[in-house]
Amino acid sequence: MDAREAVAKALETHGPIEQIYWIGCGGSLIDLIPADYMMNAESAKVESRAYTAKEFVVATPKKLGAHSMVVALSHSGGTPEVVEALKLAEERGAFIWVMTSGEGSAVTQGPWDTYIYVWEDETPQRELDSAQAIMVCAELMKAQEGFDAYDAVYEGIEKLDGIIAGAKAKVESELCKRFAELCTKHDFFYIMGSGAAFAQTYGFSICSLMEMQWQSCCYIHSAEYFHGPFEVTEPGVFYFLQMSSGPSRVEDERALAFVKTHTDTYMVLDALAYGMDAVDARVRAYLEPIMIYYMNVKLRAARGKVFDHDPHIRRYMGIEQY
Amino acid sequence: MDAREAVAKALETHGPIEQIYWIGCGGSLIDLIPADYMMNAESAKVESRAYTAKEFVVATPKKLGAHSMVVALSHSGGTPEVVEALKLAEERGAFIWVMTSGEGSAVTQGPWDTYIYVWEDETPQRELDSAQAIMVCAELMKAQEGFDAYDAVYEGIEKLDGIIAGAKAKVESELCKRFAELCTKHDFFYIMGSGAAFAQTYGFSICSLMEMQWQSCCYIHSAEYFHGPFEVTEPGVFYFLQMSSGPSRVEDERALAFVKTHTDTYMVLDALAYGMDAVDARVRAYLEPIMIYYMNVKLRAARGKVFDHDPHIRRYMGIEQY
Repeated sequence: MDAREAVAKALETHGPIEQIYWIGCGGSLIDLIPADYMMNAESAKVESRAYTAKEFVVATPKKLGAHSMVVALSHSGGTPEVVEALKLAEERGAFIWVMTSGEGSAVTQGPWDTYIYVWEDETPQRELDSAQAIMVCAELMKAQEGFDAYDAVYEGIEKLDGIIAGAKAKVESELCKRFAELCTKHDFFYIMGSGAAFAQTYGFSICSLMEMQWQSCCYIHSAEYFHGPFEVTEPGVFYFLQMSSGPSRVEDERALAFVKTHTDTYMVLDALAYGMDAVDARVRAYLEPIMIYYMNVKLRAARGKVFDHDPHIRRYMGIEQY
Repeated sequence: MDAREAVAKALETHGPIEQIYWIGCGGSLIDLIPADYMMNAESAKVESRAYTAKEFVVATPKKLGAHSMVVALSHSGGTPEVVEALKLAEERGAFIWVMTSGEGSAVTQGPWDTYIYVWEDETPQRELDSAQAIMVCAELMKAQEGFDAYDAVYEGIEKLDGIIAGAKAKVESELCKRFAELCTKHDFFYIMGSGAAFAQTYGFSICSLMEMQWQSCCYIHSAEYFHGPFEVTEPGVFYFLQMSSGPSRVEDERALAFVKTHTDTYMVLDALAYGMDAVDARVRAYLEPIMIYYMNVKLRAARGKVFDHDPHIRRYMGIEQY
């Protein structure tokens, strides 16, 4: 059951939908955050919040109930915290829709509807989890309150495959080599971003670098940078700024101006120069995290090559008991 | 006008209150996040979201309007992003209440109501910004929907001054010296926490350490730790875990068990052992960030002494143009 069908069924069985809760952990949560960001900005009716699954269980929103829609994501499908959150949502009578690439996995073992996507290089974005989450927002708003940028969302999603292909070539020729080199010289550095794309700032840090490269780093929100973190900036401190093509770009531009003049070590990945200019300005902020994700994959692969550290290697995750 | 009066006026002039938006930057935002966390868990009626002020302006929630309450905080009172957000909220017809210690400052120059607190060591917690924000939640829920733990909130706030006094002595004797020493050996380390207290995990990182000590570090959510960040853990990597006394404590306990067995360098500040056990279990999670803040102040002061770096020194903030 895809996003469109899920929203239709939610409205039929649990309508009106008053809250939408996005549930995941780590990389899966990261793929849902832009949809949460979009709903908060765009919806006049639906409340939205994203939770790391265990927080949803320990600090359950009192509103969770028969008019809530719970969208959960677990790439692997085996995340115990997500399963626990789903059982709770089921008890509360919420409409539940679960995305996973793990056919037959734990998160598919429930009375709720599921969407199984195939995570392959050639899978079109429209079929993948992040775009499906954005479609949930578009469908829900269209049905309940109207949404002017509805067509722009679908048009933007269709453009993503081409944008990403072009951006992959660009990041390889422009940024990958230097990024890997800088990693050899910095045991620690900062990633910055803003808006919905801050999900990928966080994701690049905790998934691509900490998890897959055992590389220490920290994620800083461009707007928060000036309220503390910028005091650490000085020559030799490395900043990687991932600039948004959306309304939060002004925050990144301000951060860039400061970084440029206060350290000699920085890199910029500008979503506007990486193809997002082709997407309607009303929705590009919500879709650009998808493009940025693929850039992060290229960047970590480049680092992995230089460090002889395959990004697929884990020492604890799925290996130890914890 | 204090929290109780502000809620009464909001209900009289803008009731019912359907949304509450918490607006600040850096340390001021951090003091509001626990109230946002509390509202999301406890309220059956009011939607709540915390924004760094500029994000509120660039991704303004469509719902912002005549039934919204905007609670803004600027310690100094001069934060331009907060002023910009307040003007926007005013245009949208929201009820606005602003807290600051800056009497006569920019954020007090508007048609909205203000609360001026005096930031001195002897100021009782009930008069300070963080407790006032929690009172907003308690008052709003009591008036609109009923709130069983209302008395527990006020009783807990009254206990905080004594708890903090005891905790200050404890952290000085138990943690300060070792923390400062570990800082001399680690150019970078990780702070971990969960629940509403994650606001202080973030705050310790970006305010106490990055801003006031030019110390690089990163903040990790205990529940997210197992979904990426833990892969970086190994002997020699320093983790400072600030354990919650509330329902999210299970997340911290799980993180601690892993940290204990996968690095030789860690410290624990346990809110339950630092006096929070004296507060009603239903509300202690929302109040403990206040106690933890004072511990972070002690810890940064201890580091500052060893590094001869006064936490009041800035090189950019309020000095350069940015």
